[in-house]
Amino acid sequence: MLVSRISAQLRPLLLHSFRGIHASHSAAAAWKIGNLNHVAIACPDLEKATSLYRDILGAKVSEKQALHDHGVYVVFVQLGEAKIELLHPLGDKSPIQKFLQRNKNGGVHHICIEVDNIEAAMKDLKSKNIGLLSEKSKIGAHGKPVVFLNPKDCNGVLVEVEEK
Amino acid sequence: MLVSRISAQLRPLLLHSFRGIHASHSAAAAWKIGNLNHVAIACPDLEKATSLYRDILGAKVSEKQALHDHGVYVVFVQLGEAKIELLHPLGDKSPIQKFLQRNKNGGVHHICIEVDNIEAAMKDLKSKNIGLLSEKSKIGAHGKPVVFLNPKDCNGVLVEVEEK
Repeated sequence: MLVSRISAQLRPLLLHSFRGIHASHSAAAAWKIGNLNHVAIACPDLEKATSLYRDILGAKVSEKQALHDHGVYVVFVQLGEAKIELLHPLGDKSPIQKFLQRNKNGGVHHICIEVDNIEAAMKDLKSKNIGLLSEKSKIGAHGKPVVFLNPKDCNGVLVEVEEK
Repeated sequence: MLVSRISAQLRPLLLHSFRGIHASHSAAAAWKIGNLNHVAIACPDLEKATSLYRDILGAKVSEKQALHDHGVYVVFVQLGEAKIELLHPLGDKSPIQKFLQRNKNGGVHHICIEVDNIEAAMKDLKSKNIGLLSEKSKIGAHGKPVVFLNPKDCNGVLVEVEEK
């Protein structure tokens, strides 16, 4: 569709019409995808990052929390239904340490999408050749089971799947 | 707070309590931050990326649209209030061409946050030393004014601000 031929006034309507939607999951599907839960940003300076979202952008921001089991400090930024999670390494074996060595200024570490049944989703995704980074789900930062998908199968993006 | 000392059952409640919220914007603030609008993912293979979200993950996915003014093809993936936007270069001067040269498998190109008044937000952000990548806002892919913030001032993340 040549959007450039269409007047600027009409574009927003067209862009959000979702014409030709094809959801492959029938009513009988064993699991369903949900909301975008969060975007996780690895930050070299967590206080500065928190100040950006709280003091400059004026967002609702949680206190800093130490998630020892996950090797990160985290600050939650609520932006409507979805969140930004600001992450900073905690301990010597933090899973985001290498990422920050490669990305000195920080960057998007992963995105998280909700599903209603993680076991069914994992089985289905495996059967469709989407790599999982662990055989079993683990309890994530929100106290719910999570699993990570291989970025090579997801357009270079580390995708966390969380049961809601 | 030492989350590890607290029982697993209590963690989800604590993590989302947003205790100690400090929003610096008073009722008199000239602009307000809104929702996380989208996460934009640059994709080397748009058909494959679309198939992942539509056929494998079962999300609501729009048709492919050619945004000539922006130098991208785009597919919108609706995930609750927020969207993923799958981007692929259109034309020789596409703004995501270099990104894909650096990130062969693709990756998160930018995130987009809504504001209620982009002119007021731009003036305020500039006064607080957050760099804007253009002097004026432009009409973005949704037909609304947008501006990009300097990733150096945003934890290495390219942040698009869109008036809602």
